[in-house]
Amino acid sequence: MKIECLKSNLLNGVSIVSKAVPSKTSLSILQCILIKAKDGIITLTANDTELGIETRIEGNIIQEGNVALDAKFIAEAVRKLPDSMITIDVDDNFFTKIKCEKVNLEFSGKNGEEFTAIPNINRVNNVFISDYSLKELIKQTIFCVGEGSTNQIMNSELVHINGDNIEFVALDGHRIAYRKSSLKNSYSEIKVIIPGKTLNEIERILTGDQNKDVSIFFEKNYVLFEIENTIIVSRLVEGTYFDYEKMLTKDYETKIEVNKKDIFNCIDRSTLMLREGEKKPIIFEVRDNFINFCMKTMFGEMNEDLSVNKVGKDIDIAFNPQFLLDTLKVLEDDEINIYMMSPKNPCIIRNEEDTYVYLILPVNFVK
Amino acid sequence: MKIECLKSNLLNGVSIVSKAVPSKTSLSILQCILIKAKDGIITLTANDTELGIETRIEGNIIQEGNVALDAKFIAEAVRKLPDSMITIDVDDNFFTKIKCEKVNLEFSGKNGEEFTAIPNINRVNNVFISDYSLKELIKQTIFCVGEGSTNQIMNSELVHINGDNIEFVALDGHRIAYRKSSLKNSYSEIKVIIPGKTLNEIERILTGDQNKDVSIFFEKNYVLFEIENTIIVSRLVEGTYFDYEKMLTKDYETKIEVNKKDIFNCIDRSTLMLREGEKKPIIFEVRDNFINFCMKTMFGEMNEDLSVNKVGKDIDIAFNPQFLLDTLKVLEDDEINIYMMSPKNPCIIRNEEDTYVYLILPVNFVK
Repeated sequence: MKIECLKSNLLNGVSIVSKAVPSKTSLSILQCILIKAKDGIITLTANDTELGIETRIEGNIIQEGNVALDAKFIAEAVRKLPDSMITIDVDDNFFTKIKCEKVNLEFSGKNGEEFTAIPNINRVNNVFISDYSLKELIKQTIFCVGEGSTNQIMNSELVHINGDNIEFVALDGHRIAYRKSSLKNSYSEIKVIIPGKTLNEIERILTGDQNKDVSIFFEKNYVLFEIENTIIVSRLVEGTYFDYEKMLTKDYETKIEVNKKDIFNCIDRSTLMLREGEKKPIIFEVRDNFINFCMKTMFGEMNEDLSVNKVGKDIDIAFNPQFLLDTLKVLEDDEINIYMMSPKNPCIIRNEEDTYVYLILPVNFVK
Repeated sequence: MKIECLKSNLLNGVSIVSKAVPSKTSLSILQCILIKAKDGIITLTANDTELGIETRIEGNIIQEGNVALDAKFIAEAVRKLPDSMITIDVDDNFFTKIKCEKVNLEFSGKNGEEFTAIPNINRVNNVFISDYSLKELIKQTIFCVGEGSTNQIMNSELVHINGDNIEFVALDGHRIAYRKSSLKNSYSEIKVIIPGKTLNEIERILTGDQNKDVSIFFEKNYVLFEIENTIIVSRLVEGTYFDYEKMLTKDYETKIEVNKKDIFNCIDRSTLMLREGEKKPIIFEVRDNFINFCMKTMFGEMNEDLSVNKVGKDIDIAFNPQFLLDTLKVLEDDEINIYMMSPKNPCIIRNEEDTYVYLILPVNFVK
């Protein structure tokens, strides 16, 4: 194989596919990026067997072929080469020479045929969504995905398309994140469970551009995202997602209208009292015009009043402060509504339009 | 003790003295910041027994007294409080209440009398140096200070004042950094050895302002730096500094004039071939109009030619690439001169005015 391409193109491609290179693996071929030059197209591929990323880069093919190169090395090497044309020349034994201006790098590559190919997905019947919407939907729900749960479904998100609606749902046993957005076109119903890891990597590749579209293709066991010259293929999680809908009740006994930034700062300050790893709840005493926030730990006590508008009953209720902070961070509204039923029932933060609904379980407390 | 001061003043003071709070210590009082309110002055102090920092902050004293508060907590708490007036109220048992707008933080402090005081230095006969010059002198030499050597002198720098000259010297057994600067006034000779840790912390406090002066006071075993409202007191290292001067010879067989950025990039690229922790030299083949740089490792080989002006003999010589990179990073000149004697003798990078001289030992190599 022999190709030449601009440093900037190679650097961009390498940095995109690097996101699918596993940080730890016993298969050394997976720590490589596959470079393939065929039929006038140069592609870079990385694959950790659950998630594969392939991207096309501009360049000239002088001789067709392929090679697998150590991902860490190639990323650092390309970054440090002069901003100029780079030639990659690979012989039949995959011995690789990279040339750029007066720099020569020579080292052993691996046979690209040994690389685990990305599953071939039939690209028909795609769903269009703007890069911006997809990025937001992921960012606003991904923090509720469980980490390292033995239940694979809990480590994943539900993606539900129906008509021109798309919903993302994540939950981890203590909280639920629900987001809804509109699609430009209408589609028949699709319900899939996508691993959180896949969504995390896709979020990092998306630019948040409102004028760019992403195509999503679904197959029985796989989903493929096409973002400009890049495709991301991930396996889907088998099974049925949790019946979260019945938990997102609209009933309430107490409704609180509050400034998001103010309540965020109060809760954030309460965590000052926690020593590393310590778990203590923040107690809300909700009264007519204010909430008194209190956090008592071995170290000391934090106490603060915040003006709010309250409708309904007074209530004393306690939460894991981090769960509230995580949720408040992703809300776009300046003024938010919090709904509560009882100290034992979850609180719900939702807007009038139901484009977001967040549920957080309270915790037991002693005053 | 009861004081009130603006958040911004307290935050600034806490962040300055925090630099002297040891990260690990068995004495819990040293992990505190001492707040002292006396004779109309509020001071914050931290002291790791080798290095002490004290700074004055603006504020009102309502009741004199002192308290030692956990440094990590107070730094984070002040950062998270509203940008407003903060009241710190300490009772006779050092129980502390911090109030800021509607926020109340209550916790136990410690008796400030238990805090290890900073040695009292007689502030006469100071040496004036600009904040900028002092910051530069430290930055440009500190990287050659040994780390964790059993020889305390190697972990320190020589500071030599004579007339209106000030010199900083650091060495670690493989290299020497020498810098000279001019003082506005003239002083009788002073030669002291200052711990590298002290200089590191001072460098972080200095702003690099050319119009601000720093006063340095010397006593038998201590040095005191006065930077605006802050004093930094450090013990001095006893003993006689190494006789480095005879090593900084002006003799050479080969002189190379080269662009600093170009040679930096070549050497930096050579390190691509090193796997984590691997030590291999970069080989210079110095010829009439160019240097060929080569790095061979188990992974592969890097090879690059760079145009230079050379006077004197051809030479093949090898170096630890990191030692060259560290030095090149702190040179302000675009074009630099490198002097070599033989493959066994150190190379020297110096300017015509001798305001900087850097020595780097070569390493053995096989071609």
